[in-house]
Amino acid sequence: MDYKLFELGNVPLQCGITLRNAFLAYKTYGTLNAEKSNVIVYPTWYSGQHYDNEWLIGEGMALDPSKYFIIIPNMLCNGLSSSPSNTPPPFDKARFPLVTLYDNIQVQHRLITEQFGIQKIALVTGWSMGAQQTFQWAASFPDMVERIVPFCGTAKTWPHNIVFLEGVKAALCADGAWNNGWYTEQPYTGLRAMGRVYAGWGLSQAFYRDAIYLKLGYSSLEDYLIGYWENLFFRRDANNLIAMARTWQKGDISANPTYNGDFEKALHSIKARAIVMPGDKDLYFTPEDSEYETKCMPNAIFRPFRSDWGHFAGGGASPEDTKFLDDSLKELLAS
Amino acid sequence: MDYKLFELGNVPLQCGITLRNAFLAYKTYGTLNAEKSNVIVYPTWYSGQHYDNEWLIGEGMALDPSKYFIIIPNMLCNGLSSSPSNTPPPFDKARFPLVTLYDNIQVQHRLITEQFGIQKIALVTGWSMGAQQTFQWAASFPDMVERIVPFCGTAKTWPHNIVFLEGVKAALCADGAWNNGWYTEQPYTGLRAMGRVYAGWGLSQAFYRDAIYLKLGYSSLEDYLIGYWENLFFRRDANNLIAMARTWQKGDISANPTYNGDFEKALHSIKARAIVMPGDKDLYFTPEDSEYETKCMPNAIFRPFRSDWGHFAGGGASPEDTKFLDDSLKELLAS
Repeated sequence: MDYKLFELGNVPLQCGITLRNAFLAYKTYGTLNAEKSNVIVYPTWYSGQHYDNEWLIGEGMALDPSKYFIIIPNMLCNGLSSSPSNTPPPFDKARFPLVTLYDNIQVQHRLITEQFGIQKIALVTGWSMGAQQTFQWAASFPDMVERIVPFCGTAKTWPHNIVFLEGVKAALCADGAWNNGWYTEQPYTGLRAMGRVYAGWGLSQAFYRDAIYLKLGYSSLEDYLIGYWENLFFRRDANNLIAMARTWQKGDISANPTYNGDFEKALHSIKARAIVMPGDKDLYFTPEDSEYETKCMPNAIFRPFRSDWGHFAGGGASPEDTKFLDDSLKELLAS
Repeated sequence: MDYKLFELGNVPLQCGITLRNAFLAYKTYGTLNAEKSNVIVYPTWYSGQHYDNEWLIGEGMALDPSKYFIIIPNMLCNGLSSSPSNTPPPFDKARFPLVTLYDNIQVQHRLITEQFGIQKIALVTGWSMGAQQTFQWAASFPDMVERIVPFCGTAKTWPHNIVFLEGVKAALCADGAWNNGWYTEQPYTGLRAMGRVYAGWGLSQAFYRDAIYLKLGYSSLEDYLIGYWENLFFRRDANNLIAMARTWQKGDISANPTYNGDFEKALHSIKARAIVMPGDKDLYFTPEDSEYETKCMPNAIFRPFRSDWGHFAGGGASPEDTKFLDDSLKELLAS
């Protein structure tokens, strides 16, 4: 195994349930310097695991492990950190409790401080739900986070985004094999259906109009729907996917005692210098929502991707978009 | 029953199968004048039946039955015209053949000419798949159709629209009760899941952001998702819904011997004066696709709805959008 586990012990969650003997799976890249001033935290996205983030890390890139100590914490419920699939009864499977973004960042903070003794983070960045965790980091620990680059994600999950996820969940759960989470083998038909539903949302109308999937090595639309989208979820545990979707749907950096639901106050409280980077054709983390949020942040620049890749402008498969992102990361890290 | 049946006999379809003892269900409003010059044809939309179109008809409106003879033909597979649910074996249920938009307009043409002896149609108009049938009318019978107002629909089904429908179909078919169409009772879980998937597509991000559903009498987002979206498909036959989705996915006014797949030629061949009216926030029949198509038509005006209702700008529930549409219909009918 190419990652480490950080034992969290018993973690009381916002929902009121305690996650017992919980753990975070994480991987680090590069070396922590003596001043502990070269730290980058880079959370994972929906269904992603740490290795799915590695495309943005490399020599000569902004996230250069010869300069920075980069930590990728796996989001709770992603199958490597504590999840429905790896927690013993009675809190396993369908009984795994609701985990919020706030809960995630609280335990990531413990990893950063208890395991590494880090007091300042040079940069938090992430894609999609990773961007949501980025915002949560900056709102939960405004004096600790110096810079953020959330890309293709918002500080709260806006209503249409919630509706989109209702469709994704419904497709998975329509499979009788799902059995309310008490399946004996994965509900493969539902997992594949979920991928097909997601396919229309992940990319833009222009992506499909211009058959950009052909550049990815897929030979037809159907080849892409099966080869990429069905495969993406087919390999995951259904309860984990539903649990992460619930985390996502509840996303709101102000849904905690610090801000008591005052969303604009939470955004105003972010001290980090920020470049907020939505995809201009993202269908669920919309540029309009990002622009509004950015205006509420004191030190933030709004810089959308101009891309036909929709949400996947930040997914690493589009070289132009990756360069645009990497340049912004370099710019902010140099400031 | 408030509609009539037109017996079609045996109808050879584009797919090579013959639909035997086929019939069209239709309803008329107003009186055909002596010159047969006051005819409006107004096809139905996906899952809709003739009565779902009636909101656009009325005294003082463009579609005024005191002036016009308005014919609403029910689309094949919609449960009233020949459909998987009402066709006897062996071509019933999952064995019901693929019906194209071309096939639909061929049999509607027979209704118009054989039943009523009509040679000119003053206007064809329709929403969504009704708009697609409108384009098909104008391309299949360019010398017969004088005016068209297709709203929230395109002359072919563009790739992203096909992907969106893949998700809708997959959600329905993930329900094991679907049984490849050989169900003994409706796959209700799948039908409800399909509604939840559709909910995110039907309206715009702004519609949900501003909770416009509250104006429709729904008390919460969940109340709307169940009360409108689950209910919309829950009442329909699953094979009929899949059959209409297939018709939709194959939509292309040039996919026939007249045009041999030359889409721009088919658009150029439309002689009707046209006002093409997409929703500017429609997520699957996009304004970009409509604008391109309109530019290929010789006598067409591009006039998008400016509306937060997305695809449902043309659904009849938004009074401002309905007035905008009705005014355009009046303008074109007066020309």
